[in-house]
Amino acid sequence: MAVNLSAPNPAELFPIAGVRLGVTEAGVRKANRKDLTVVLLDPGTAVAGVFTQNRFCAAPVQICREHLARTYDIRALLINTGNANAGTGADGRRRAISTCVALAVKLDIAATAVLPFSTGVIMESLPVERIEAGLDAALADAREDNWLSAAQAIMTTDTVAKAFGTQLTIDGAPVSITGISKGAGMIRPNMATMLGFMATDACVSYEVLEQLAKELAEGSFNRVTVDGDTSTNDSFVVIASNKAGHAEIDSLESVNGRALKAAMLGVAKKLAQAIVRDGEGATKFITLQVEGGKTQAECRQVAYAIAHSPLVKTAFFASDPNLGRILAAVGYAGIADLEQTGIDLYLDDVHVATGGGRHPDYREEDGSRVMQQSEITVRVALGRGDAADTVWTCDLSHDYVSINADYRS
Amino acid sequence: MAVNLSAPNPAELFPIAGVRLGVTEAGVRKANRKDLTVVLLDPGTAVAGVFTQNRFCAAPVQICREHLARTYDIRALLINTGNANAGTGADGRRRAISTCVALAVKLDIAATAVLPFSTGVIMESLPVERIEAGLDAALADAREDNWLSAAQAIMTTDTVAKAFGTQLTIDGAPVSITGISKGAGMIRPNMATMLGFMATDACVSYEVLEQLAKELAEGSFNRVTVDGDTSTNDSFVVIASNKAGHAEIDSLESVNGRALKAAMLGVAKKLAQAIVRDGEGATKFITLQVEGGKTQAECRQVAYAIAHSPLVKTAFFASDPNLGRILAAVGYAGIADLEQTGIDLYLDDVHVATGGGRHPDYREEDGSRVMQQSEITVRVALGRGDAADTVWTCDLSHDYVSINADYRS
Repeated sequence: MAVNLSAPNPAELFPIAGVRLGVTEAGVRKANRKDLTVVLLDPGTAVAGVFTQNRFCAAPVQICREHLARTYDIRALLINTGNANAGTGADGRRRAISTCVALAVKLDIAATAVLPFSTGVIMESLPVERIEAGLDAALADAREDNWLSAAQAIMTTDTVAKAFGTQLTIDGAPVSITGISKGAGMIRPNMATMLGFMATDACVSYEVLEQLAKELAEGSFNRVTVDGDTSTNDSFVVIASNKAGHAEIDSLESVNGRALKAAMLGVAKKLAQAIVRDGEGATKFITLQVEGGKTQAECRQVAYAIAHSPLVKTAFFASDPNLGRILAAVGYAGIADLEQTGIDLYLDDVHVATGGGRHPDYREEDGSRVMQQSEITVRVALGRGDAADTVWTCDLSHDYVSINADYRS
Repeated sequence: MAVNLSAPNPAELFPIAGVRLGVTEAGVRKANRKDLTVVLLDPGTAVAGVFTQNRFCAAPVQICREHLARTYDIRALLINTGNANAGTGADGRRRAISTCVALAVKLDIAATAVLPFSTGVIMESLPVERIEAGLDAALADAREDNWLSAAQAIMTTDTVAKAFGTQLTIDGAPVSITGISKGAGMIRPNMATMLGFMATDACVSYEVLEQLAKELAEGSFNRVTVDGDTSTNDSFVVIASNKAGHAEIDSLESVNGRALKAAMLGVAKKLAQAIVRDGEGATKFITLQVEGGKTQAECRQVAYAIAHSPLVKTAFFASDPNLGRILAAVGYAGIADLEQTGIDLYLDDVHVATGGGRHPDYREEDGSRVMQQSEITVRVALGRGDAADTVWTCDLSHDYVSINADYRS
């Protein structure tokens, strides 16, 4: 039921030299499904991560932060579904570390060179033995052209695997970019999404990659929301294997830096939007453009107020142009000195409201026509400045309730 | 389907001397339903109001604020359902004022002595002629023992009328308190609820009544949420007809002031909680107690994060003790220096989590037992101070989606 989201196009998933992926069915929570992924990185690969701002962040998120702070030499990622290892206290940390040690021993690397990621049910013990028992099979499966399989192995309530890629040329050298993501509920990333991984063979310094990861997250995963629930496990990782053969990019402001960032942002946006398109129960993909604000932050605040309003989201589900609900959300977004008389509202090309009231030319049938579409752009002009921002979200349907009332059963 | 909420008990709805209520079927939006109410106040009655903080506040809210600022001598309230007169711009203001003028002419009072209230669909023109045509019938119906009928006439998506009262003695004089409220969706009052009206015959100075209205709202209507949508029309009005015959209360800190406030707060809480019990699609009534915070504000912030999480609300609907979702909401509530290791979580008497992880004695069947109940208390101990706060909410069910997807049809 995902909104205009097809299965990944294998031709677009470019192998990244120096990055091998292997998956297996470890039975973490359920049998007969891919649930364990290893990503093996050649020496010299740069890795940067952006993680959830949830104060109840999961054990693997804590370990990732610590390992990234301790070494530049990350050599492996270890990802499981079926269990989030969140809300598990000190025991959860010990279990996450023990899976890192088990993989490190097999690869003859330091345990701090492994980054662990977990997603699934919260507040249950990570079944370390099953994960460790699955490592050999995952390692045996590792190869560079295995992105599609990895995208499938990190799914939880996702209905469609999410993987995109692109290519560009830097100083005559071909550069490839491929990424995967997962997530459908508990989605209001705050620094990153549930799980997103992108790799490129471009040659990038560690410092530039760290900056790039932040800017990519800001322009993609930090602009989507399904239900406003910021996960305990959000992680977004960017990998540069430095194999493409061009001169190292030492600034994002350089010509090559800008080109690489634009290409990677294109993929990151697709990965982030795919999460909304596959949002739990989603039937519509909504783009919220807020402009004319004093600051970008207040535009985002208004966009999120609309995106999180259950009344707005159910109206989209019903294809009902009950657009006063959008005005109400703008009003309670928290901008203390907002003047309703300065506000205009558009639904795609239809001018719905002006000066705080219904536009004289607005006809209900025009609103209804747009509301039937599966892709809708809501544009709010605040009329108080030049700043703008965009957020992507989906509607709230019966299936959202069903999926989340039944998730653990 | 309201949660443990019966129809009002007529024996509890005490007539308030000097306050007469009349209703009629004016056909504002639909025929054959009570939708217009007048409340007539004897001279010498004090009136105070608390209104929505939504910047898109409705025309009648703007007019109420202006009339209350201009005169102490409010003599009538005029309340319609079926149309909120919100998102209607300058034309909406003119229409609200014109209904005040029509009633003022009939009563031979100033137009500024009338307070208008509207609730219903947003962004449609208020049908002034139908309201004006209904005034005579409403006035003919006006009497002091008509509270139940008024409670019915202000309902929109409410399934049960909401009215409560109590009596106390002040300096030997019997004092009565009666109140009504309405609301079921677009409920996250920020200074007041959709509509709440309380009256007493107690003798209270205007300044004390103004303070009392704020404190009552703070302790009742500002502690409930259904869907986190702060309405454009929230209004809470407290009326003191000064007929009880005791000496005027000139301080809320006096013995009589405290007694009156306690009695009125008891009624206000029932009125506010009734809105949650009748929350759109509600099947469970949830009390969220957050304690051990540094400030009351941060406790409230955590309580609202839990109360607004669609994942937590659907888990309550499913009676599924997927309690990690509560921890996740605590984590993203926005307390930057919160330490998960200090946190305890209780579900009624069941100790679910401690030190940021599952309590060693917690058994899933204990969580399941509590989750089956129609009334559940969630207690979160933050372990960082002495402040506490409480918020009341309900679950998120299929019926919420149905009701809001169909509301206008």
